[in-house]
Amino acid sequence: MQTASIKQVLGGEIAVGSEVTVQGWVRTRRDSKAGFSFIHLNDGSTFGNLQLVADKDLPNYDDEIRHLTSGCSLTCRGKVVESKGRGQSVEIQAGTVEVVGWVEDPDTYPVQPKKHSFEFLRTVAHLRPRTNTFGAVTRVRHAAARAIHEFFDEQGYYWINTPIITSSDAEGAGQLFRVSTLDLMNLPRTDEGKIDFREDFFGREAFLTVSGQLNVEAYCLAMSKVYTFGPTFRAENSNTARHLAEFWMVEPEIAFADLNDLARLAEDFLKFVFTRVLDRCSEDMEFFAERINPEAIERLRKLIETDFVRMDYREAVSILADSGENFEYPAEWGLDLQTEHERYLTEKHCKAPVVVMNYPDEIKAFYMRLNDDGKTAAALDVLAPGIGEIIGGSQREERLDVLKRRMAEHGLDAETYSWYVDLRRYGTVPHAGFGLGFERLLNYITGLTNIRDVIPYPRTPGHAPF
Amino acid sequence: MQTASIKQVLGGEIAVGSEVTVQGWVRTRRDSKAGFSFIHLNDGSTFGNLQLVADKDLPNYDDEIRHLTSGCSLTCRGKVVESKGRGQSVEIQAGTVEVVGWVEDPDTYPVQPKKHSFEFLRTVAHLRPRTNTFGAVTRVRHAAARAIHEFFDEQGYYWINTPIITSSDAEGAGQLFRVSTLDLMNLPRTDEGKIDFREDFFGREAFLTVSGQLNVEAYCLAMSKVYTFGPTFRAENSNTARHLAEFWMVEPEIAFADLNDLARLAEDFLKFVFTRVLDRCSEDMEFFAERINPEAIERLRKLIETDFVRMDYREAVSILADSGENFEYPAEWGLDLQTEHERYLTEKHCKAPVVVMNYPDEIKAFYMRLNDDGKTAAALDVLAPGIGEIIGGSQREERLDVLKRRMAEHGLDAETYSWYVDLRRYGTVPHAGFGLGFERLLNYITGLTNIRDVIPYPRTPGHAPF
Repeated sequence: MQTASIKQVLGGEIAVGSEVTVQGWVRTRRDSKAGFSFIHLNDGSTFGNLQLVADKDLPNYDDEIRHLTSGCSLTCRGKVVESKGRGQSVEIQAGTVEVVGWVEDPDTYPVQPKKHSFEFLRTVAHLRPRTNTFGAVTRVRHAAARAIHEFFDEQGYYWINTPIITSSDAEGAGQLFRVSTLDLMNLPRTDEGKIDFREDFFGREAFLTVSGQLNVEAYCLAMSKVYTFGPTFRAENSNTARHLAEFWMVEPEIAFADLNDLARLAEDFLKFVFTRVLDRCSEDMEFFAERINPEAIERLRKLIETDFVRMDYREAVSILADSGENFEYPAEWGLDLQTEHERYLTEKHCKAPVVVMNYPDEIKAFYMRLNDDGKTAAALDVLAPGIGEIIGGSQREERLDVLKRRMAEHGLDAETYSWYVDLRRYGTVPHAGFGLGFERLLNYITGLTNIRDVIPYPRTPGHAPF
Repeated sequence: MQTASIKQVLGGEIAVGSEVTVQGWVRTRRDSKAGFSFIHLNDGSTFGNLQLVADKDLPNYDDEIRHLTSGCSLTCRGKVVESKGRGQSVEIQAGTVEVVGWVEDPDTYPVQPKKHSFEFLRTVAHLRPRTNTFGAVTRVRHAAARAIHEFFDEQGYYWINTPIITSSDAEGAGQLFRVSTLDLMNLPRTDEGKIDFREDFFGREAFLTVSGQLNVEAYCLAMSKVYTFGPTFRAENSNTARHLAEFWMVEPEIAFADLNDLARLAEDFLKFVFTRVLDRCSEDMEFFAERINPEAIERLRKLIETDFVRMDYREAVSILADSGENFEYPAEWGLDLQTEHERYLTEKHCKAPVVVMNYPDEIKAFYMRLNDDGKTAAALDVLAPGIGEIIGGSQREERLDVLKRRMAEHGLDAETYSWYVDLRRYGTVPHAGFGLGFERLLNYITGLTNIRDVIPYPRTPGHAPF
């Protein structure tokens, strides 16, 4: 007899009348007065539960089946039959129901089939994938990750696993986690009394990466089209719904490319990923639209259909100044755009995703290419309705002399970055790339507003690592 | 005029006679006495170089083209023509050659088109992807990673990004990197004089993960089929060709499964990945077979065609004892198998990949399922000819009472692992999983013997992080 996933059974892959084995965890049990029980079984393969109909004539009906509670695991052998109930086309007429694992003290089982607060579920992160919401998050996260890899692979990009442990700080101003094997009770000291990192594992001070960009640039200048997709870290002590200490980032980098090429890539990328997720996770997305954000599906569809608007930062500031809106923060040349500004531009003014380009040089990082006006850098942000900035990128400064001058201005250590500067000595080319926070993308897709709810285990101050 | 990758041109996707733009880095330039130059251009998209034929009548022929050296970047517009030269079917008759980036001081350019030692190339990790070997490694690494995701996706597994920063040590005895934001010059102390980790970022001591297994088990017991594929860390101070401080690991975990199911999964997995890599990277693999290991392709083909042999550890030890071989290490009940033993079993005795199963309990980790004999654990290793162990896995101890007893025997902190124990209280099921070091797999595929040569940037003691 074949074993099938619930996705296969509900998807019609197993013919009505076939015998099949299914396995999973009980969501609910309901006993009919007519002498049988309906068990809703979930195995995570899909959103829906499979209904098992267990007759009172089953040998373990009274002793076991009638005692099944949410969370119990079981193996059921039975026949696929058409369902007379609502909401499913087929169900299983159980031949045998073997209870594999009971729930110790069902009354205290943390993920009962009822509403739980998100805050509570973060404290039981090992059990929350058994709920509708976090099962759906897991499948959508997988589908989005798969779509990201597919998008790049189909276009000839190579995935580069840039270092997690690094000695450079890509942003020049990040808050870093130190990685060390030094004995804290017995720290080695230099003659001047400082910590002697020559005694540490790598022979120098090392940190968790905040971005793979600098490293992936080297690969870009050999392989032409590359991307990273891996974990990055920020030791920001901000316990907000938008910040994570550990998050995954997507960073494509393309050679022989300028800011317009990058804007096109960002637009193609978002449209591709959203299309695939809507296609492959329709039930999960319907759930998010029903329970989390009514716009969840519609705003993705709209974004897919809409041409992105491109405008200069200068123009954006002028639109904001002329808007008549009462913003909390000022919008003027030389200041970064705030979320309220971004959302005005994309939701009210353009009614479309917006790519803001060419920001004032002084608010941008040292590696962004200085434009010919000497005042702006070839940087862009992609703003999406309902969330604001979702992608940030730039053309990179490929000119050796300009890069060296800007590194000096930013006070960067020439030796630490010597290999990065090197790339401009040897066959430098215009190149550009962007960064996208994967979890921020998932917040946008699912409609879930807290970033801790789209990762498998919360990792923020106050949510200690498992 | 369309821009094409060299892969597209050499692959015949651009019709002979078409005008095309290609971009990349010069590998070599050779001047003909007849008054033109052959330039071999590489853009990383494929192994081969594209030959550009530049005539002396080009306006920048004397001033620029004749000065091109290895590493210079250029954009060439020209016509695709059939090649009269050996080794390529088409070449480009250059219409224009625009030099985009020169090489500063060509005599000292580190990656000249000649033989370099691997040791030297590790010191210029930012430039080594421009060599034949590391271009091929990059493409094979990408293709293998893609195949891994495809294998699991096609079989209904979900990719879980388990935490990188963690407070638990999956192996119970790993050497850990500490992750901290404490100020080393001013460490907070408890009343007893110890380090007060309550003041650290997460409010407790935190480390880089050595394995995602424990965390992914929780997802397995909700989603049924899951896998991790992410970076893991070991602070082993062993500067050997086989150890890395930072490496990527693949860890599938399946519910309602035993050790035989796991053995089948491991066999299917390896065969799938090798098939895809041979299929998609044929030129790169031919290069590895020519230059690195003559067996590189043949041993993958053989593995794909051969049924894996399964045997008990007990039988393996008895075969080794009866082998008449003069092993350096003893092979007897209660000792782990050494590489020499593993290679004898797979290369000489079975002449096939071997799955050794059911090891003595005392040499295995606390989470591995105790067999009914009370002496062995349901663990397996997959041994491949030419390398030995390539996969290690086990059925997990799913019985609450047995797990608790074994954790106590191993002296594990009950509070740290309370969530892991919890999983056995609530609908526990038999489940199993394996771990595979991605870089070890890549060593096997490419034939490169040093693990530092299959990662983008070396990270070991003595190879400081970039």
